[in-house]
Amino acid sequence: MSNLELDSQSAWLSREHLDEARDRLPILYVDIVPVRVDERGEVTAIGLLLRVSDDGRITRELVSGRVLYQERLRDALLRHVEKDLGPVALPRVPATPQPFTVAEYFPTPGVTPFHDPRQHAVSLAYVVPVSGDCAPQQDALDLAWLTPREAMDPNLLADLDRGHDILLRQALAHLGFPI
Amino acid sequence: MSNLELDSQSAWLSREHLDEARDRLPILYVDIVPVRVDERGEVTAIGLLLRVSDDGRITRELVSGRVLYQERLRDALLRHVEKDLGPVALPRVPATPQPFTVAEYFPTPGVTPFHDPRQHAVSLAYVVPVSGDCAPQQDALDLAWLTPREAMDPNLLADLDRGHDILLRQALAHLGFPI
Amino acid sequence: MSNLELDSQSAWLSREHLDEARDRLPILYVDIVPVRVDERGEVTAIGLLLRVSDDGRITRELVSGRVLYQERLRDALLRHVEKDLGPVALPRVPATPQPFTVAEYFPTPGVTPFHDPRQHAVSLAYVVPVSGDCAPQQDALDLAWLTPREAMDPNLLADLDRGHDILLRQALAHLGFPI
Amino acid sequence: MSNLELDSQSAWLSREHLDEARDRLPILYVDIVPVRVDERGEVTAIGLLLRVSDDGRITRELVSGRVLYQERLRDALLRHVEKDLGPVALPRVPATPQPFTVAEYFPTPGVTPFHDPRQHAVSLAYVVPVSGDCAPQQDALDLAWLTPREAMDPNLLADLDRGHDILLRQALAHLGFPI
Repeated sequence: MSNLELDSQSAWLSREHLDEARDRLPILYVDIVPVRVDERGEVTAIGLLLRVSDDGRITRELVSGRVLYQERLRDALLRHVEKDLGPVALPRVPATPQPFTVAEYFPTPGVTPFHDPRQHAVSLAYVVPVSGDCAPQQDALDLAWLTPREAMDPNLLADLDRGHDILLRQALAHLGFPI
Repeated sequence: MSNLELDSQSAWLSREHLDEARDRLPILYVDIVPVRVDERGEVTAIGLLLRVSDDGRITRELVSGRVLYQERLRDALLRHVEKDLGPVALPRVPATPQPFTVAEYFPTPGVTPFHDPRQHAVSLAYVVPVSGDCAPQQDALDLAWLTPREAMDPNLLADLDRGHDILLRQALAHLGFPI
Repeated sequence: MSNLELDSQSAWLSREHLDEARDRLPILYVDIVPVRVDERGEVTAIGLLLRVSDDGRITRELVSGRVLYQERLRDALLRHVEKDLGPVALPRVPATPQPFTVAEYFPTPGVTPFHDPRQHAVSLAYVVPVSGDCAPQQDALDLAWLTPREAMDPNLLADLDRGHDILLRQALAHLGFPI
Repeated sequence: MSNLELDSQSAWLSREHLDEARDRLPILYVDIVPVRVDERGEVTAIGLLLRVSDDGRITRELVSGRVLYQERLRDALLRHVEKDLGPVALPRVPATPQPFTVAEYFPTPGVTPFHDPRQHAVSLAYVVPVSGDCAPQQDALDLAWLTPREAMDPNLLADLDRGHDILLRQALAHLGFPI
């Protein structure tokens, strides 16, 4: 099944059944920290999307999205990188299925550090180096590349919703950076 | 919400909506490799459940089960250990959410090493030491404790369905055993 | 070989040859984040040692030490927990050899986030739950148990030398805590 | 310090002091499983070196070597890939310092699955995708690229010394392959 068919199937699902499932089941997600690496494999920049939230605020976001029925995790990672960073981002999806962490987004705030008012989502989190040209897609205003140091700025982190600020810091910790 | 309420809610869900969701969404699971460890933390035995399959064969299984709506992963691990090994197994659920692997069970055999004819399940796999008394529950015939060496016996591994033989070997590899 | 014999051999080594080796080779260490966990496996407290440093300051430290010749990593973890927390700490050394991170301590500050003026040390870092009685040993003034939230206090973290503040935060990130 | 200087310093060290240190300290190594990945990040081939051992047998090997004084792990990985696969292998060293396992090579066989008659070596193991041209260097006879399935052939695995057959299977397990 092509990505396009999966997308249209998913869109169709979302109207009728996804809302219902979201009230009854944890929904499987992937969270992606897009990074630039140098020739030594060291992370030099982290990519954050800039969006306007439903209530009109400017927010920053990691790449994130649902895993579809019969979709491999690997393909879900590729699809969401393409969806948010464009078709020539050239992502290097990790060879191992082991995520660096698992984020549990609860519809009720405060149960975990992660929160999603729409649903109970469980998200496998991966760092994904991209080596191609990246451009914000769809409703994103911009894509900013920040150094690991810049990405730790509390003012910037305050712009990340749903606990993505925490996930970003957990990623930086996993990468060996001072946090 | 107590475990009992979650279970009854889940049972109720399974009649009306779970079958439907299983045709449309990946279902989130946990796979648990129950182990005995010595005082140095080294694994001395792996627990395998003995069951009769639907077609009358004797099969061996790891502890496994669904994550429920609004249930923490940690609580799902505890609930399934209790369900399969009894209420005094005294499991030591890992402090970190990072699983040692993620197993993707596809309804179509051959897509991945893992297969579940009922559904597309994505399962976070953890090794869980148990220090209390364990006894087979419900429909399990027996619970066998095998040394890591015994657990590598191809005759024994042939009794594990759905790719659990592979997951067991992946767990032993993660634990540093020769495989 | 008993722990005692290893210790005396190590002491003997340290006079004549260890200083020499420290000028020429990376020295293998283990870093241990001692934690208390509840019955669900969730970390409730982190143990930090209080010492007086060579220059008379009060410093806080994780459990840490060298791996000896022909010593298993598992035994090095047990030995250092016993050395710093006493003989009845009842540590639960992880079943897997995979550390949550590797800290590279350089004699020159600034090369990595970690620094050790005595040597180039490469340290495998593990979270080790302890369930027994712990007491500060040898030259430690005290052992303080802090909640994950307390352990994130910048004033407290400022008391940790050599980059242990960063290692502690990396451990908390690995454990899924907001950092 | 350039790689060349590090190498000559190491050669100098090896005459006078390395043999002595090898009798008294664990020596820090890195083990590298070189792989080819497709555009989805999935491993398609594993690279194994063919050598003639001291006793005249043909053996197969992973890329492996010592970490030098004041050398970053990342630079040790790059140096050993270059040493064994040539200067244009274009390795993608992992962004995280977390190895997939740690192999403990003991001079006495049977203590662990790993054995090195020369020394007690502790080796951090990483999977490293290479995207450039690779060629056997120095004393290697050949470099063979095998599919994951071929790499599991017991006849082939029998050609790997020191426990590298086990490390290779542990790597394949970590990558999610059936083993």
